[in-house]
Amino acid sequence: MDLGQTERLKPVLAAVKHMIQDEIMPLDAEFLAEVDKGDRWRFTARQTEILETLKASAKTRGFWNFWDTFRDGPQFSTVEYAYLAEEMGKSHLAAEVFNCNAPDTGNMEVFARYGTAAMQEQWLKPLMAGEIRSAYLMTEPDVASSDATNLSMRCVRDGDDYVLNGEKWWATGAGDPRCAVHIVMVRSRDDGPKHQQHSMIVVPADTPGIEKLRAMEVYGHDDAPHGHMHFRYTDVRVPAENMLLREGAGFEIAQGRLGPGRIHHCMRAIGQAENALAFLCRRSVAREAFGKPLAQLGENFDLIAKARMDIEQARLLCLKAAWMMDQGDKKAAAPWISQIKVVAPQIALDITDKAIQMHGAAGVSQDTPLARQWTHLRTLRLADGPDAVHRRQVARAELRAYMSGQNTS
Amino acid sequence: MDLGQTERLKPVLAAVKHMIQDEIMPLDAEFLAEVDKGDRWRFTARQTEILETLKASAKTRGFWNFWDTFRDGPQFSTVEYAYLAEEMGKSHLAAEVFNCNAPDTGNMEVFARYGTAAMQEQWLKPLMAGEIRSAYLMTEPDVASSDATNLSMRCVRDGDDYVLNGEKWWATGAGDPRCAVHIVMVRSRDDGPKHQQHSMIVVPADTPGIEKLRAMEVYGHDDAPHGHMHFRYTDVRVPAENMLLREGAGFEIAQGRLGPGRIHHCMRAIGQAENALAFLCRRSVAREAFGKPLAQLGENFDLIAKARMDIEQARLLCLKAAWMMDQGDKKAAAPWISQIKVVAPQIALDITDKAIQMHGAAGVSQDTPLARQWTHLRTLRLADGPDAVHRRQVARAELRAYMSGQNTS
Amino acid sequence: MDLGQTERLKPVLAAVKHMIQDEIMPLDAEFLAEVDKGDRWRFTARQTEILETLKASAKTRGFWNFWDTFRDGPQFSTVEYAYLAEEMGKSHLAAEVFNCNAPDTGNMEVFARYGTAAMQEQWLKPLMAGEIRSAYLMTEPDVASSDATNLSMRCVRDGDDYVLNGEKWWATGAGDPRCAVHIVMVRSRDDGPKHQQHSMIVVPADTPGIEKLRAMEVYGHDDAPHGHMHFRYTDVRVPAENMLLREGAGFEIAQGRLGPGRIHHCMRAIGQAENALAFLCRRSVAREAFGKPLAQLGENFDLIAKARMDIEQARLLCLKAAWMMDQGDKKAAAPWISQIKVVAPQIALDITDKAIQMHGAAGVSQDTPLARQWTHLRTLRLADGPDAVHRRQVARAELRAYMSGQNTS
Amino acid sequence: MDLGQTERLKPVLAAVKHMIQDEIMPLDAEFLAEVDKGDRWRFTARQTEILETLKASAKTRGFWNFWDTFRDGPQFSTVEYAYLAEEMGKSHLAAEVFNCNAPDTGNMEVFARYGTAAMQEQWLKPLMAGEIRSAYLMTEPDVASSDATNLSMRCVRDGDDYVLNGEKWWATGAGDPRCAVHIVMVRSRDDGPKHQQHSMIVVPADTPGIEKLRAMEVYGHDDAPHGHMHFRYTDVRVPAENMLLREGAGFEIAQGRLGPGRIHHCMRAIGQAENALAFLCRRSVAREAFGKPLAQLGENFDLIAKARMDIEQARLLCLKAAWMMDQGDKKAAAPWISQIKVVAPQIALDITDKAIQMHGAAGVSQDTPLARQWTHLRTLRLADGPDAVHRRQVARAELRAYMSGQNTS
Repeated sequence: MDLGQTERLKPVLAAVKHMIQDEIMPLDAEFLAEVDKGDRWRFTARQTEILETLKASAKTRGFWNFWDTFRDGPQFSTVEYAYLAEEMGKSHLAAEVFNCNAPDTGNMEVFARYGTAAMQEQWLKPLMAGEIRSAYLMTEPDVASSDATNLSMRCVRDGDDYVLNGEKWWATGAGDPRCAVHIVMVRSRDDGPKHQQHSMIVVPADTPGIEKLRAMEVYGHDDAPHGHMHFRYTDVRVPAENMLLREGAGFEIAQGRLGPGRIHHCMRAIGQAENALAFLCRRSVAREAFGKPLAQLGENFDLIAKARMDIEQARLLCLKAAWMMDQGDKKAAAPWISQIKVVAPQIALDITDKAIQMHGAAGVSQDTPLARQWTHLRTLRLADGPDAVHRRQVARAELRAYMSGQNTS
Repeated sequence: MDLGQTERLKPVLAAVKHMIQDEIMPLDAEFLAEVDKGDRWRFTARQTEILETLKASAKTRGFWNFWDTFRDGPQFSTVEYAYLAEEMGKSHLAAEVFNCNAPDTGNMEVFARYGTAAMQEQWLKPLMAGEIRSAYLMTEPDVASSDATNLSMRCVRDGDDYVLNGEKWWATGAGDPRCAVHIVMVRSRDDGPKHQQHSMIVVPADTPGIEKLRAMEVYGHDDAPHGHMHFRYTDVRVPAENMLLREGAGFEIAQGRLGPGRIHHCMRAIGQAENALAFLCRRSVAREAFGKPLAQLGENFDLIAKARMDIEQARLLCLKAAWMMDQGDKKAAAPWISQIKVVAPQIALDITDKAIQMHGAAGVSQDTPLARQWTHLRTLRLADGPDAVHRRQVARAELRAYMSGQNTS
Repeated sequence: MDLGQTERLKPVLAAVKHMIQDEIMPLDAEFLAEVDKGDRWRFTARQTEILETLKASAKTRGFWNFWDTFRDGPQFSTVEYAYLAEEMGKSHLAAEVFNCNAPDTGNMEVFARYGTAAMQEQWLKPLMAGEIRSAYLMTEPDVASSDATNLSMRCVRDGDDYVLNGEKWWATGAGDPRCAVHIVMVRSRDDGPKHQQHSMIVVPADTPGIEKLRAMEVYGHDDAPHGHMHFRYTDVRVPAENMLLREGAGFEIAQGRLGPGRIHHCMRAIGQAENALAFLCRRSVAREAFGKPLAQLGENFDLIAKARMDIEQARLLCLKAAWMMDQGDKKAAAPWISQIKVVAPQIALDITDKAIQMHGAAGVSQDTPLARQWTHLRTLRLADGPDAVHRRQVARAELRAYMSGQNTS
Repeated sequence: MDLGQTERLKPVLAAVKHMIQDEIMPLDAEFLAEVDKGDRWRFTARQTEILETLKASAKTRGFWNFWDTFRDGPQFSTVEYAYLAEEMGKSHLAAEVFNCNAPDTGNMEVFARYGTAAMQEQWLKPLMAGEIRSAYLMTEPDVASSDATNLSMRCVRDGDDYVLNGEKWWATGAGDPRCAVHIVMVRSRDDGPKHQQHSMIVVPADTPGIEKLRAMEVYGHDDAPHGHMHFRYTDVRVPAENMLLREGAGFEIAQGRLGPGRIHHCMRAIGQAENALAFLCRRSVAREAFGKPLAQLGENFDLIAKARMDIEQARLLCLKAAWMMDQGDKKAAAPWISQIKVVAPQIALDITDKAIQMHGAAGVSQDTPLARQWTHLRTLRLADGPDAVHRRQVARAELRAYMSGQNTS
């Protein structure tokens, strides 16, 4: 169970780390500040320049699609990728610079694994080239989507087409003008086994009948131009061949898609936790009160120690989950992914909150990236399943050995 | 130690509660939405209409200046006021509707207790009438203001004037176009006893040399038009009679000012905790997942119970602190106020966070007031002294009995 | 809602406090050490001397049966009694010295409220005189007694008698050679409404068929000679008039009995929390490490502050629950009692654990009363209902307002 | 960074696991019950029979001295040993059955690494053969031993001898009649660098002047015949060649000794955490209340999930610390060992406490090993340095990068 950095990873990781710290992070704030200039939902010229220049630079160095199952060179394992994801988490822009951002990586994987050759040509190729962006439409406003069997967007076969009706929200990235395609979880029947009533289908973003109702806000932020969009689909019609895999395969595909994505999210959260701890430590030695550096006051030593212990444990757990994923048994890996999905965002939130507190009023303000980071991390306790659902999964896996024919639901 | 509602309070409290729920809360969202129309730092006509109509209505009913030490009728004790503050905390607008909002109440108290007759005529009267607003300039960007002896804005006597130089930030309410006056904590000498080097001085908001550098943001929100302003004072000159009480009395006045204000903040936080718990409970019975209302899943019963126990304890502690304040011995009341300053915001934050989680993605969004409430509450762990400073005060008070000549600093 | 000390209470409380600190606590350790001399389940002569001398002294001063509903002088309210209970909690012997110990106070109340004149003559009178002791047999080894409807000891009418069969354990005090009578919760029918299948019946401790199987241990301690006994009842026969109130009234009586007892337990726990905090503080200023008193190292200020805040909140909550009880509406008081039942033992345990840690290895040893206190407090999280059941009650009470015809079970 | 089980370990681990579960654990309770028969500080014939039979059996199979740096066969790395330690932690007797118990392993290491050939012949050989036992005398009653520079037992050179005077307590294992030798930390000078004033010296247990004052109790348990002894040394005289390494090398030796020992303790704690979780799960499916298995009530799913997540993280952290130790850089490994020393006992305690609560009153009683396990684990938060000292070490290691010439003490 080697959870360390492989020899082939080390030079790549070091170079990626430097590129992030020296070239990408210095531009994060400027990129974000551009959002307030002009139309929030268009890229400014400067935004495009920043992003495309960085992307080109990354591509040139071969730092592109680390998660690419098609690339010629050595393909990184999930464990290796995890280390890269941690570094990418430290910067707002980095994941996209390397074409490794959510939800596109997950969507690329869906196309790669379950898409037809035509879909791969039309959507996967430009996604892998970073030319278009995509969205994943899962959650709905009217049902408790934490229990995904509740999802209700209607998908009805009509001749050679499927016709979709319903609402989806929190379609992250769908505000981006480059977003060209939606992968949509729909209900294609109401009877039969609970986990075979849903399907996954591909819908071009410009299909008639798609209405952008509004941008959802996260603690008041719309995260433009990326955005978390609320859509209404009214008689949205797509050819039958847009169905992924087959009717009823929605859950099968969703499970395949979500595993790696959750690991990436969690490792990026670890990167943010490291960011926060560095902020916290720097401030604690730089500021004085009552005649001493803050570090030497009250519980500050203890909370620094706790932060370090929490990070190390969470990182090891993520790496173990990644290693389980690399073993190829998704069922066995599932409870490990649920574990990190609960643990990583929570410790990252906690440490970020502590770093905010250590900064006093500056911590909640625009003068550090901490407050923004906190709101971003907070959504991870809900995205891809709220904590409660994942704890439930972990508990049920644990109890399975003790049950004999009893229902743990 | 009567911590209950007095007979004279009950009818007022009931009427205030109804006015808040029936007349004020329904307008909160509209008032807030107006901010994004036009100049964020001016009131729109509709905002003025909403606020002034409600104020007039409150005044007519005698629900005005509950904390007024000059009013003719019965003056409410701190315990009584605390119950009213809890209700006001449930609405964005309520505190100002009753002219009971921070920082104006604290500033009014400063003028009433330490101001000259001229100051009371010029500033206290229109403040009590709700005609102008005021700001309190304490915190500075360049020093750890949690140890207020660090504060460094320079105040030098020059003939019949004082001349002020330095920066202040987080001047809450100073963005409001109606804000007419600043009460400012300044350093008037560098030697002598640590707690007698600072003074409190009155500065009209339009004095030349005052520069509004920017609005501080709270998790991305500028709270316009109220605002938390960052000022630079350059050779700001005021007459010597603007000095409050006497040179060197800054800490004496600050202590007198902050006690009741902290109790009000904390009781408003209790009101918000109640708000959050109501949201949480309603959602937990209204949504279903895995075939059951959320309330019946996992730890939800337990966290509802914990929220209730936390609220009841925090409220009783606030009432006890208020009762201590009413006994008239500020020194004895101080550690109680430090206790609630730590406890009340934390439980309110925790319950609000749980309510957010219970709502799924809706919780972090604009669809409930919870996310906004959370960011507001978060600042209370820093405003008027961060948690760590208050815990330190509580601990030192506790240890005093065990020390014999030992220094607990 | 006066939660303070009344004028009539103050002198009694002061005198009781002094008697406990000056006369009783100094003998606690000697009394306990006697247990290991000779038969653990008999009192040594010295134990009898210590206890009876103190009891006589208390009686002479009128400090006896504070909870006595029959005494001539002023009867203390639950709030007043709560303050006395806090002081009694600080000493191992104090509660019995004042004839205010569990389970006898609860049993006296049962006899007083539900007993016949004959029962009162036979059992209540000597109990109130401190001449005999009693036990309360509720919990059973074979069922989850946290749901008391599970209790299964059989009670069958046979002519003029009832015949009892089954096992009871954790009969606290039943090891005491002075224990003369059991009050026993039994199942008298298997049909009908769930809360009317059980009865409460009086069984003299020397009735044939009662077998003492063993003494239950608490973290290895048998608490001899008091003890927590495990009984088997085999064809235990008592006259029909030993039935309390009426067949089927078991739950009605149990509820009446447990309310005040839980408040007493909780306030005694508060007393123990204060004990622990005093130990913690004394040690933190007396010991040095790394060149400083422990108090000034790491999080020690913070945990002292937290302990003080926890105690104040828990005490106020207990007093509020006591006040609710004094208002006479048991149904309304019930969720308050559930609240303190969860809160008080937990904060007392937590503070005791922190005090142990502050003492280093001495803390877990026989050199302080802290380890013993901890094990005693730990049982309170189970006795009279485990935390989970009380949290459940609090949550259900909270949710009642939000349900319309929905079942919250 | 391979944290997994090596191929050579797997069969040994499997066999050891089976031997523990099938042969050793079934005898734990009987062995412990023997203590109360006759002299607590002598082995009964049955105790000797149980222990020696198991030891002989283990030796025969080659399961002996896993930590032995001299054995001929493959020497297990710290990571490999950690997996074995986890299994041994699950049984009271197992560690000694394999001659892998504290403090003997640590003492063997001291003799092996720092002892003279004569010492190795006299003490190491019989220790490795399991013929004698040893004690490690570090902690003292009169100083805060958490800061080991405080240790004060006097050691004065007198001709060819050293003469020792002072008190030591918590000498674990020193009550055992087989305990033949003490390794003692003494103060050999009062000046010079703080960490060079102490020495480590070997003292035969039967040296005149050694007085056993008493057995220290842990929550009332004396852990006889093993014991935690309190000694007074009065003019205890040993030859100068009993000095280990050299005068002043006490801290150097202590650091070398404690690292692996702490890892073993922590991995045994993980084993106990697994034990506790298994008890918790079994009970949660076996008992019913309110019509459901306990597992399906309230927060029980959530706490099972938390236990699993805590265990996995703590285990990975222990394995990482072991791996750091195996890299050979003790200084680099030190903060990792401090981390697990804080984390592992705490999560094991927490899970054990939860398991106790799940069992109701049975949990605190003699009917499960949980209460005993809890008291044992509780001492680990103090032994080999209290939590606070280890958190301090972790924080100082973290802050080092942020300091420039500043003192973090």
